[in-house]
Amino acid sequence: MGTKTKHAIQPTRSENFAEWYQQVVSRAELGEIAHVRGCMVIKPWGMGIWEAIRNALDEQIRARDVENVYFPLFIPLKYIQKEADHVEGFAKEMAVVTHTRLRKIDGELVPDPDAKLAEPVIVRPTSETIFGASMHDWISSYRDLPLKLNQWANVVRWEMKPRVFLRTTEFLWQEGHTAHATEADAMDETLQMHEVYRQFSIEWLAIPVIPGEKPASERFPGAERSFTIEAIMQNGRAVQAGTSHFLGQNFAKAAEIQFDDRNGEVAHAWTTSWGVSTRLVGALIMVHGDDDGLRVPPNVAPKHVVLQPVLRGIPEDQEVLSRCREIAAKLNGLRFGPSVALRCHVDGRDRRSVDKKWEWVRKGVPVRIEIGPRDLDLGAVEVIRRTHLNEPMPVALIDLADRLPRILEEIQGQLLAEATANLEANITYGLGDSAVLAAHFAKPNAGFAVVSWCQSTKCQEELSSWKTSLRCIPFERADEPGPCAICGSPGETVVVGRSY
Amino acid sequence: MGTKTKHAIQPTRSENFAEWYQQVVSRAELGEIAHVRGCMVIKPWGMGIWEAIRNALDEQIRARDVENVYFPLFIPLKYIQKEADHVEGFAKEMAVVTHTRLRKIDGELVPDPDAKLAEPVIVRPTSETIFGASMHDWISSYRDLPLKLNQWANVVRWEMKPRVFLRTTEFLWQEGHTAHATEADAMDETLQMHEVYRQFSIEWLAIPVIPGEKPASERFPGAERSFTIEAIMQNGRAVQAGTSHFLGQNFAKAAEIQFDDRNGEVAHAWTTSWGVSTRLVGALIMVHGDDDGLRVPPNVAPKHVVLQPVLRGIPEDQEVLSRCREIAAKLNGLRFGPSVALRCHVDGRDRRSVDKKWEWVRKGVPVRIEIGPRDLDLGAVEVIRRTHLNEPMPVALIDLADRLPRILEEIQGQLLAEATANLEANITYGLGDSAVLAAHFAKPNAGFAVVSWCQSTKCQEELSSWKTSLRCIPFERADEPGPCAICGSPGETVVVGRSY
Repeated sequence: MGTKTKHAIQPTRSENFAEWYQQVVSRAELGEIAHVRGCMVIKPWGMGIWEAIRNALDEQIRARDVENVYFPLFIPLKYIQKEADHVEGFAKEMAVVTHTRLRKIDGELVPDPDAKLAEPVIVRPTSETIFGASMHDWISSYRDLPLKLNQWANVVRWEMKPRVFLRTTEFLWQEGHTAHATEADAMDETLQMHEVYRQFSIEWLAIPVIPGEKPASERFPGAERSFTIEAIMQNGRAVQAGTSHFLGQNFAKAAEIQFDDRNGEVAHAWTTSWGVSTRLVGALIMVHGDDDGLRVPPNVAPKHVVLQPVLRGIPEDQEVLSRCREIAAKLNGLRFGPSVALRCHVDGRDRRSVDKKWEWVRKGVPVRIEIGPRDLDLGAVEVIRRTHLNEPMPVALIDLADRLPRILEEIQGQLLAEATANLEANITYGLGDSAVLAAHFAKPNAGFAVVSWCQSTKCQEELSSWKTSLRCIPFERADEPGPCAICGSPGETVVVGRSY
Repeated sequence: MGTKTKHAIQPTRSENFAEWYQQVVSRAELGEIAHVRGCMVIKPWGMGIWEAIRNALDEQIRARDVENVYFPLFIPLKYIQKEADHVEGFAKEMAVVTHTRLRKIDGELVPDPDAKLAEPVIVRPTSETIFGASMHDWISSYRDLPLKLNQWANVVRWEMKPRVFLRTTEFLWQEGHTAHATEADAMDETLQMHEVYRQFSIEWLAIPVIPGEKPASERFPGAERSFTIEAIMQNGRAVQAGTSHFLGQNFAKAAEIQFDDRNGEVAHAWTTSWGVSTRLVGALIMVHGDDDGLRVPPNVAPKHVVLQPVLRGIPEDQEVLSRCREIAAKLNGLRFGPSVALRCHVDGRDRRSVDKKWEWVRKGVPVRIEIGPRDLDLGAVEVIRRTHLNEPMPVALIDLADRLPRILEEIQGQLLAEATANLEANITYGLGDSAVLAAHFAKPNAGFAVVSWCQSTKCQEELSSWKTSLRCIPFERADEPGPCAICGSPGETVVVGRSY
């Protein structure tokens, strides 16, 4: 292994993680802040990752008899009003549509005063209320339950300090909404989807997570119980990677979702909602990126193998190009991992070889292979893995189709192993009192602390006083919880950390 | 064949086509008008059709080296202003966001006066301007061209008289935006995408179309040339099923999309845009529906084969159900037509058999098979094709996997043949003067008239005076155009019709 002195991304992670993140987003051509305040543009490589996530997760959601639908972007203000009457504490940062036409007045386009809506409409920040309105119409008997719906959509929550993929006014997500006849069924659904997210994060994104329940103060407004998977970034900060909410009968009561039960009595349904968003792309960057850019886990990579023909501006180039295309045709569609179809791309662009190389390194394509006339003559190439840039693997051309699926699986495994080691290294146990915790969280990369907490608001406030928050009450814990780290009363195990 | 006196849809097409359409949308559970003014809810079966369309078309678009992206929902008002300065005649019916927060005043939620935007933003009606702003940033040299982008997104055009899938305030679509170094390249792109749409409509939707160019007055505002595919419904009315626009340098000038050309001189790019929308689902209903509901062309059907186990509420039901699941497992993933993966669904719901049957008939699933213990004993079933409800085909169980792909291809062919016959029957030639045309278009189901037109505005106005419009100047014509049907001057062939 050579000694590398220069990196493709400046600054490095250890120099300035926040700035490194922005640079990876930009230099790997994942996305950018749009000209519209607070919004983002998702560029092809970032969109390709999101589409790979969407396609894989969509299949798993459908396998659970959930059906895709599409509900309106706009929500009548009166629905929000009704929700406000039933549900405390929802955010009021919403885009409000007040006019339906522009008019030219003195050469300037302005909202037409004659086209002002009698009742403004809200651009959906989430769709419980509008799904609820249809569930009210569609459900009349226990035979109509469960009703399990999902949509892939854009949502808007006004945001003044945007960060691409992590926090923007508009983002893309998937939101599931289900209604059930019994409390037990709704709770089952909530927990099963939470488990789908947990497995998806590990197996597809190679992001290990801590599954658990949100403490009451961190619940989705209107939820009776909220479950989360918490991921840790390389700088020790938390990202909530997916949530699943048991809504009890709160939304069913607000929207009057009622049905005749098996005994012929009218009952309110029990509902759930659950979602993941383009924020996952942000988490993926911060978990798997290195100082040369992104490293995309093969299971969600838009392209898995890039063949880079060595072109010299001579007629023989055509032969090299066409041999590359033949190889790509043989590799395309091979299956690896959880039945992912291998996508092989021939990069025949008329650019400098070294520029193309570094572009793919920064983008984090799992495998890159340069192919020149000499390689073709020898019948062997060097496979460059993004995880081991300085350890090329010689592979005979004839073996590529056998070897590459295995190599991609190994890269996926390597990324998961590194991320798991990072998670474990960033969890601290046994910080048994307030002073020790304060000292711990004074460190910039403090990671997660697993402590005991008496579940009082007062102690929660202290546990959150170091720019931290209670991430979750984990499902699994190493041992029995001890006394509350703050007050010493009997406690419950809780994960504390600093989040995005 | 039995005589059918009653139909699943009331009224029938001939009784009241408009009401029949609404009934199919409702009774086939495709969608409905939402509680939000002018918007629609797309229900699972309608969404499944749109997703099948999206997946197939997306693959064809990508195969042309177009990359998917995602651009913001919101467009700054100043972009619309800039467009208004360059482009005449765009519609001003747009949703205008003026506030970014709600506030509770006297118990009522209202737009917060303190959160009024200094500059309102518009919910995208189409995205030329916002793509243009990024193209301005991303393009600096001829090496950056062509730049070919596409997005699947929702758009909003305020609409007071909504009709599900055909005309709604919000709808889903795909919008491609490309930039090129030369006029010829941009025109090529425009025409190639137009051809993709034409073939897609015929091969996948089984909807024959008339490809042609829009007359100047019907162009997309800002386009130098607009191309369309025009489909005809069973009632003789036209639906514009896809458009592709050559935008010249109009949008490039408005957005200052400039580049250094091969000679080192600064030039404006040439741009195109093209799209199809959920309106295709509306067209599909009106082309292929019959008096029993929808008939979905197999190539875009969410489910191709429904197995309906005959259940009698006895323990033996389990054996029937599990045999059905075995059969489905064998059928799933078989390929037919243009490499469509067969989707077989076992409908084991606890409902009356006759209700399930008619639900699938109304939804138009291509093939339905009832399977009871006797069929399993005999080793043969009756295949019911949606196109031939009264002609069951006996097929041995052992032959199903061989026969069904062929049967689905035949159904696809049958639907295309019927639609082609309908198109041909609805085109009238040789209506050589104004009086004859007036009499022709006095008929409610007049269809298309192919006439000659001198290209003057005056004669166009007369040709459009029977609630008609000039649909297109067709690429292909039966013979040389004669004198203008209105004024007798030398003419160009044009298709006139009444549209949705």
